Amino acid sequence: MENSGIARQLSTFRKTIDNIDAALIHMLAERFRCTDEVGLLKARYQLPAVDQAREQQQFQRLAVLAQEADLDSALVQRLMQFVIGEVVERHRQIAARHEPKPANNPNPRA
Amino acid sequence: MENSGIARQLSTFRKTIDNIDAALIHMLAERFRCTDEVGLLKARYQLPAVDQAREQQQFQRLAVLAQEADLDSALVQRLMQFVIGEVVERHRQIAARHEPKPANNPNPRA
Repeated sequence: MENSGIARQLSTFRKTIDNIDAALIHMLAERFRCTDEVGLLKARYQLPAVDQAREQQQFQRLAVLAQEADLDSALVQRLMQFVIGEVVERHRQIAARHEPKPANNPNPRA
Repeated sequence: MENSGIARQLSTFRKTIDNIDAALIHMLAERFRCTDEVGLLKARYQLPAVDQAREQQQFQRLAVLAQEADLDSALVQRLMQFVIGEVVERHRQIAARHEPKPANNPNPRA
Protein backbone atom coordinates (compact mmCIF):
# COMPACT_ATOMS: atom_id res chain seq x y z
CA MET A 1 0.00 0.00 0.00
CA GLU A 2 1.20 3.53 -0.71
CA ASN A 3 2.01 5.75 2.25
CA SER A 4 -0.96 8.02 1.47
CA GLY A 5 -3.16 4.91 1.46
CA ILE A 6 -1.78 3.80 4.83
CA ALA A 7 -2.41 7.27 6.30
CA ARG A 8 -5.97 7.30 4.89
CA GLN A 9 -6.69 3.82 6.25
CA LEU A 10 -5.32 4.80 9.68
CA SER A 11 -7.41 7.97 9.67
CA THR A 12 -10.57 5.99 8.81
CA PHE A 13 -9.98 3.57 11.70
CA ARG A 14 -9.31 6.45 14.07
CA LYS A 15 -12.56 8.18 13.10
CA THR A 16 -14.43 4.98 14.02
CA ILE A 17 -12.52 4.73 17.32
CA ASP A 18 -13.38 8.37 18.12
CA ASN A 19 -17.07 7.75 17.38
CA ILE A 20 -17.07 4.64 19.57
CA ASP A 21 -15.37 6.59 22.38
CA ALA A 22 -18.07 9.27 22.23
CA ALA A 23 -20.70 6.52 22.47
CA LEU A 24 -18.85 4.84 25.38
CA ILE A 25 -18.57 8.13 27.31
CA HIS A 26 -22.27 8.88 26.87
CA MET A 27 -23.32 5.34 27.83
CA LEU A 28 -21.05 5.56 30.87
CA ALA A 29 -22.58 8.93 31.83
CA GLU A 30 -26.05 7.39 31.60
CA ARG A 31 -24.86 4.42 33.70
CA PHE A 32 -23.65 6.78 36.47
CA ARG A 33 -26.90 8.78 36.31
CA CYS A 34 -28.75 5.53 36.89
CA THR A 35 -26.43 4.21 39.63
CA ASP A 36 -26.66 7.62 41.36
CA GLU A 37 -30.46 7.11 41.46
CA VAL A 38 -29.83 3.70 43.02
CA GLY A 39 -27.51 5.40 45.53
CA LEU A 40 -30.23 7.91 46.41
CA LEU A 41 -32.79 5.14 46.88
CA LYS A 42 -30.34 3.20 49.07
CA ALA A 43 -29.54 6.31 51.12
CA ARG A 44 -33.21 7.19 51.62
CA TYR A 45 -34.19 3.71 52.74
CA GLN A 46 -30.96 2.79 54.50
CA LEU A 47 -30.03 -0.07 52.21
CA PRO A 48 -26.34 -1.12 52.29
CA ALA A 49 -24.04 0.57 49.71
CA VAL A 50 -22.66 -2.80 48.59
CA ASP A 51 -24.87 -5.74 47.59
CA GLN A 52 -22.55 -8.71 47.14
CA ALA A 53 -25.19 -11.02 45.63
CA ARG A 54 -25.98 -8.39 42.98
CA GLU A 55 -22.27 -7.82 42.25
CA GLN A 56 -21.67 -11.54 41.86
CA GLN A 57 -24.64 -11.78 39.48
CA GLN A 58 -23.31 -8.80 37.49
CA PHE A 59 -19.83 -10.31 37.11
CA GLN A 60 -21.25 -13.68 36.01
CA ARG A 61 -23.39 -11.93 33.40
CA LEU A 62 -20.45 -9.79 32.23
CA ALA A 63 -18.32 -12.92 31.75
CA VAL A 64 -21.01 -14.37 29.44
CA LEU A 65 -21.34 -11.07 27.54
CA ALA A 66 -17.54 -10.81 27.18
CA GLN A 67 -17.41 -14.33 25.73
CA GLU A 68 -20.24 -13.60 23.29
CA ALA A 69 -18.49 -10.40 22.17
CA ASP A 70 -15.12 -12.20 21.84
CA LEU A 71 -13.53 -10.03 24.52
CA ASP A 72 -11.05 -11.14 27.18
CA SER A 73 -13.28 -11.70 30.20
CA ALA A 74 -10.46 -10.88 32.66
CA LEU A 75 -10.10 -7.47 30.99
CA VAL A 76 -13.85 -6.86 31.25
CA GLN A 77 -13.79 -7.88 34.92
CA ARG A 78 -10.95 -5.44 35.66
CA LEU A 79 -12.72 -2.60 33.85
CA MET A 80 -16.04 -3.24 35.55
CA GLN A 81 -14.40 -3.61 38.96
CA PHE A 82 -13.03 -0.12 38.37
CA VAL A 83 -16.48 1.23 37.38
CA ILE A 84 -18.32 -0.56 40.22
CA GLY A 85 -15.70 0.63 42.74
CA GLU A 86 -16.44 4.19 41.61
CA VAL A 87 -20.20 3.54 41.93
CA VAL A 88 -19.82 2.28 45.51
CA GLU A 89 -17.75 5.36 46.40
CA ARG A 90 -20.47 7.62 44.90
CA HIS A 91 -23.12 5.70 46.86
CA ARG A 92 -21.18 6.39 50.06
CA GLN A 93 -20.97 10.11 49.20
CA ILE A 94 -24.71 10.21 48.41
CA ALA A 95 -25.50 8.42 51.69
CA ALA A 96 -23.42 10.98 53.60
CA ARG A 97 -25.46 13.84 52.06
CA HIS A 98 -28.97 12.41 52.62
CA GLU A 99 -31.13 11.81 55.65
CA PRO A 100 -32.68 8.34 55.64
CA LYS A 101 -36.49 7.89 55.49
CA PRO A 102 -37.95 4.77 57.08
CA ALA A 103 -39.84 2.39 54.78
CA ASN A 104 -43.47 2.41 55.90
CA ASN A 105 -44.33 -1.22 55.37
CA PRO A 106 -44.34 -3.12 58.68
CA ASN A 107 -43.61 -6.38 56.84
CA PRO A 108 -40.44 -5.72 54.80
CA ARG A 109 -39.83 -7.87 51.73
CA ALA A 110 -37.26 -5.80 49.85
CA MET B 1 -42.41 4.17 49.84
CA GLU B 2 -43.40 0.61 50.69
CA ASN B 3 -40.70 -2.04 50.71
CA SER B 4 -42.21 -3.75 47.65
CA GLY B 5 -42.09 -0.37 45.88
CA ILE B 6 -38.44 0.12 46.84
CA ALA B 7 -37.58 -3.37 45.56
CA ARG B 8 -39.47 -2.72 42.29
CA GLN B 9 -37.74 0.64 41.80
CA LEU B 10 -34.32 -0.93 42.49
CA SER B 11 -35.07 -3.75 40.05
CA THR B 12 -36.07 -1.23 37.34
CA PHE B 13 -32.81 0.71 37.75
CA ARG B 14 -30.79 -2.51 37.69
CA LYS B 15 -32.44 -3.63 34.46
CA THR B 16 -31.34 -0.33 32.87
CA ILE B 17 -27.81 -0.76 34.26
CA ASP B 18 -27.65 -4.31 32.85
CA ASN B 19 -28.80 -3.08 29.42
CA ILE B 20 -26.21 -0.29 29.47
CA ASP B 21 -23.50 -2.80 30.46
CA ALA B 22 -24.39 -5.02 27.51
CA ALA B 23 -24.13 -1.97 25.22
CA LEU B 24 -20.79 -0.94 26.80
CA ILE B 25 -19.32 -4.44 26.37
CA HIS B 26 -20.36 -4.61 22.72
CA MET B 27 -19.08 -1.10 21.98
CA LEU B 28 -15.81 -2.01 23.68
CA ALA B 29 -15.55 -5.22 21.64
CA GLU B 30 -16.03 -3.18 18.47
CA ARG B 31 -13.39 -0.69 19.67
CA PHE B 32 -10.85 -3.51 20.15
CA ARG B 33 -11.74 -5.01 16.74
CA CYS B 34 -10.96 -1.62 15.23
CA THR B 35 -7.77 -0.99 17.24
CA ASP B 36 -6.59 -4.52 16.33
CA GLU B 37 -6.95 -3.51 12.66
CA VAL B 38 -4.84 -0.43 13.45
CA GLY B 39 -2.31 -2.74 15.12
CA LEU B 40 -2.19 -4.94 12.03
CA LEU B 41 -1.68 -1.90 9.78
CA LYS B 42 1.09 -0.62 12.08
CA ALA B 43 2.75 -4.05 12.17
CA ARG B 44 2.60 -4.46 8.39
CA TYR B 45 4.09 -1.04 7.67
CA GLN B 46 6.39 -0.82 10.68
CA LEU B 47 4.66 2.16 12.30
CA PRO B 48 5.41 2.65 16.02
CA ALA B 49 2.94 0.99 18.48
CA VAL B 50 2.51 4.25 20.40
CA ASP B 51 1.65 7.58 18.75
CA GLN B 52 1.95 10.23 21.46
CA ALA B 53 0.43 13.05 19.39
CA ARG B 54 -2.63 10.90 18.70
CA GLU B 55 -2.93 9.91 22.38
CA GLN B 56 -2.71 13.52 23.49
CA GLN B 57 -5.42 14.48 20.97
CA GLN B 58 -7.60 11.62 22.23
CA PHE B 59 -7.28 12.64 25.87
CA GLN B 60 -8.07 16.29 25.07
CA ARG B 61 -11.17 15.19 23.15
CA LEU B 62 -12.22 12.81 25.96
CA ALA B 63 -11.95 15.64 28.50
CA VAL B 64 -14.38 17.73 26.39
CA LEU B 65 -16.75 14.76 25.96
CA ALA B 66 -16.63 14.02 29.70
CA GLN B 67 -17.54 17.63 30.49
CA GLU B 68 -20.42 17.61 28.00
CA ALA B 69 -21.72 14.36 29.50
CA ASP B 70 -21.34 15.71 33.07
CA LEU B 71 -18.79 13.01 33.95
CA ASP B 72 -15.69 13.44 36.12
CA SER B 73 -12.97 13.94 33.53
CA ALA B 74 -10.27 12.44 35.82
CA LEU B 75 -12.35 9.24 36.01
CA VAL B 76 -12.69 9.13 32.22
CA GLN B 77 -8.94 9.68 31.82
CA ARG B 78 -8.17 6.79 34.20
CA LEU B 79 -10.59 4.47 32.41
CA MET B 80 -9.29 5.36 28.97
CA GLN B 81 -5.68 5.07 30.10
CA PHE B 82 -6.57 1.53 31.11
CA VAL B 83 -8.19 0.80 27.71
CA ILE B 84 -5.42 2.48 25.69
CA GLY B 85 -2.75 0.64 27.73
CA GLU B 86 -4.47 -2.61 26.74
CA VAL B 87 -4.58 -1.49 23.08
CA VAL B 88 -0.83 -0.74 23.06
CA GLU B 89 -0.12 -4.17 24.57
CA ARG B 90 -2.28 -5.82 21.88
CA HIS B 91 -0.44 -3.82 19.20
CA ARG B 92 2.87 -5.15 20.52
CA GLN B 93 1.52 -8.72 20.41
CA ILE B 94 0.21 -8.22 16.87
CA ALA B 95 3.58 -6.75 15.79
CA ALA B 96 5.36 -9.80 17.23
CA ARG B 97 3.15 -12.13 15.13
CA HIS B 98 3.42 -10.31 11.78
CA GLU B 99 6.17 -9.80 9.27
CA PRO B 100 6.45 -6.18 8.15
CA LYS B 101 5.84 -5.21 4.49
CA PRO B 102 7.63 -2.15 3.14
CA ALA B 103 5.45 0.70 1.89
CA ASN B 104 5.98 0.97 -1.88
CA ASN B 105 5.86 4.72 -2.31
CA PRO B 106 9.35 6.16 -2.78
CA ASN B 107 8.19 9.55 -1.50
CA PRO B 108 6.57 8.87 1.89
CA ARG B 109 3.97 11.34 3.13
CA ALA B 110 2.21 9.32 5.82
